[in-house]
Amino acid sequence: MAFVFSSLKVLPVVRSSGVRFFSATASRMDNVETTLNPTGYSVISMNKGPANSLNMEFIQELTQSVRKAEGESKGILLTSSLPTIFCAGLEITEMYKPDMVRLREFWSSLQDLYLALYGCRVPTVAAINGHSPAGGCLLGMCCDYRIMVGPKYSIGLNETQLGIVAPYWFKDTMVQTIGSRQAELSLTLGLMYTTEQALSLGLVDKMVSDKDEALVEAEKMLIALMRVPSEARHVSKMSIRKDIYDRLSAGKQEDIDYFANFIVQSVIQKPLGQYLDALKNKKKKKSV
Amino acid sequence: MAFVFSSLKVLPVVRSSGVRFFSATASRMDNVETTLNPTGYSVISMNKGPANSLNMEFIQELTQSVRKAEGESKGILLTSSLPTIFCAGLEITEMYKPDMVRLREFWSSLQDLYLALYGCRVPTVAAINGHSPAGGCLLGMCCDYRIMVGPKYSIGLNETQLGIVAPYWFKDTMVQTIGSRQAELSLTLGLMYTTEQALSLGLVDKMVSDKDEALVEAEKMLIALMRVPSEARHVSKMSIRKDIYDRLSAGKQEDIDYFANFIVQSVIQKPLGQYLDALKNKKKKKSV
Amino acid sequence: MAFVFSSLKVLPVVRSSGVRFFSATASRMDNVETTLNPTGYSVISMNKGPANSLNMEFIQELTQSVRKAEGESKGILLTSSLPTIFCAGLEITEMYKPDMVRLREFWSSLQDLYLALYGCRVPTVAAINGHSPAGGCLLGMCCDYRIMVGPKYSIGLNETQLGIVAPYWFKDTMVQTIGSRQAELSLTLGLMYTTEQALSLGLVDKMVSDKDEALVEAEKMLIALMRVPSEARHVSKMSIRKDIYDRLSAGKQEDIDYFANFIVQSVIQKPLGQYLDALKNKKKKKSV
Repeated sequence: MAFVFSSLKVLPVVRSSGVRFFSATASRMDNVETTLNPTGYSVISMNKGPANSLNMEFIQELTQSVRKAEGESKGILLTSSLPTIFCAGLEITEMYKPDMVRLREFWSSLQDLYLALYGCRVPTVAAINGHSPAGGCLLGMCCDYRIMVGPKYSIGLNETQLGIVAPYWFKDTMVQTIGSRQAELSLTLGLMYTTEQALSLGLVDKMVSDKDEALVEAEKMLIALMRVPSEARHVSKMSIRKDIYDRLSAGKQEDIDYFANFIVQSVIQKPLGQYLDALKNKKKKKSV
Repeated sequence: MAFVFSSLKVLPVVRSSGVRFFSATASRMDNVETTLNPTGYSVISMNKGPANSLNMEFIQELTQSVRKAEGESKGILLTSSLPTIFCAGLEITEMYKPDMVRLREFWSSLQDLYLALYGCRVPTVAAINGHSPAGGCLLGMCCDYRIMVGPKYSIGLNETQLGIVAPYWFKDTMVQTIGSRQAELSLTLGLMYTTEQALSLGLVDKMVSDKDEALVEAEKMLIALMRVPSEARHVSKMSIRKDIYDRLSAGKQEDIDYFANFIVQSVIQKPLGQYLDALKNKKKKKSV
Repeated sequence: MAFVFSSLKVLPVVRSSGVRFFSATASRMDNVETTLNPTGYSVISMNKGPANSLNMEFIQELTQSVRKAEGESKGILLTSSLPTIFCAGLEITEMYKPDMVRLREFWSSLQDLYLALYGCRVPTVAAINGHSPAGGCLLGMCCDYRIMVGPKYSIGLNETQLGIVAPYWFKDTMVQTIGSRQAELSLTLGLMYTTEQALSLGLVDKMVSDKDEALVEAEKMLIALMRVPSEARHVSKMSIRKDIYDRLSAGKQEDIDYFANFIVQSVIQKPLGQYLDALKNKKKKKSV
């Protein structure tokens, strides 16, 4: 899980998109690749096949990557190394018939990732280059700006479709992003939106046609954000996010207790089990 | 005021709209017709000519109908049996030179209807097939989804036009539906919107060209909502509505006191009297 | 700083726009011209060249003009007498190397102007006929309705671009006007919007092509607002604005303390100084 900003070999790489990366500044955790862009921001790329599903270890790697990039660079571009998925959300197996000690640590880790990204002191832009349900949508919403590849991908908080409920901080973040009415409809139906729908709702800020374009646009926005005096920029951001941020910060234990009690109910465990069975059958069919 | 879900004669009726009704499951209160659709939801149709104006008895019938349907079916489609009016709002005569005991019970009844519909445990969809001012707009906003026939009808909280003020829970519900800015403009001017305007503001979710289409679309949305695991769906809905719901629940008496004191002021009674006179003259002219 | 509604010479002036002014009812403070329109509203026109920048004396004149017009007429049309600027916002020299006694009075005066305009008992419409950054945008947002000349002008809370932070009441007012998400993006980037962008965001309500048209449209809206029973209209407006209004009303001293401590930090003073230097150099170049 090493994370080093090396400066040994500085090899500028010009991509077709025009966004240059210096390969020497790349570092790697098990499933997170971090690259320092010469412009001064970090590219954090999720690379945990097949779906960037958020199990506890991956969540912790992401949090470390965010905190490291926050301390050592001037901005964060969050994206995925996978071809069609940005992030599939929470790993269901973490919540199905869970070990209670690990369950609580899992949830605490997710809270930490949320707080690190939502309150991040450097500008954060998500280049959403694939499907982004549930926890994936949350990661996107935590960033300062969202660019999404379209039109074929989908994004949304679809928890109710599995019979579970998005925690209040997921909900608050969505309300702040798209307003009460659309958040209500979205959460009650567990809606997944196409990129176009997400754009028209304001769930994402820009639609592009491929990942290269997403990186170019993300860089443009990062540069614009990095040009603003950083203290004023961050204080302004937190003036909007403070209530939500503080509520979770102050209520972490209570939220862990609530989640741990909620998730083990048989009315919740049963649909999770059914969902996992359905996933297994799908894989079997594919492998035949 | 009998309300019975009979299952004696089950006669499927296929309407031109494709929405089937079983006539045997129809029941009737004085002014409210409830039909159980075979898909599992109740159709509650307001039928108090000429305008479905909400006097105390009608409000109480509606509340009973909503609670009954909530307990005995899987969803509610709220509509009107009248040709051009969904619901004209509160009956002005209840508020003009009122008997104070009845006035307080009238207001308490309205609070109960609001809470029953706004917090309803089963999905609720309004098929707004006619004009829907003031209290009529409120009934629509209480539902989970609003389909409105256009373009010729109008909807809005136009209380200020009569010199009265929408109670805070009307206001809160509108803010949640269309946001602070549009709610402010709407309430200060007492605006009535065309179906198209209401759609573009988000005051309604879908525009259709006639009632049959409204029923078809309402059924589609009800089926989508009924497919979502019901506990997760309802908890998600209330996560958005809880603050408004709880504020009125906890403050019913205070709100009744406020309303009773407010409405009897001469500055309020006078325009109500003028409005009633204008209505009477209008009727006289028509009958000539 | 005389402010008199004179009725000596009543000379109706018909403008090309069709909005009539009676010159006799005009009054003048040093930098604020107030005219009583025969329809019953006051036109308050800011005329402090070159940019209507808000120094303490000008702020106090504006507050007096607003309070006077509130007491003696039925509405307020706020506009600028300058050719291309509505209001350039706070006078930077008030905040750079300030005398602390004056700084506190300056800030207190701005709070008073905000409260006078934001909570005004008579309808208020802004005819924004020029650029409107920072405090200029705030004055517009305080009004009940905003008409802006386009497409060449710009409006926004761009404080972060100077390294300063919009006070919480600026922020709250913007959130109420355009919602949390757009306010966040707007404040963190210090965005200035074109008239068209401002219209599509809801930061202004109507776009017109010149000042005459702005005055005509403003009069239309003022007449509509003045027709609504005034008590009901004002109570409805304050039902939306009350939380923000009361928070500042109750927290004036605390906000003055915060501002006074915030602005004198070297990290804030330095960019203000650089900005003032840049302005001076610009003027020198022009005068050469």
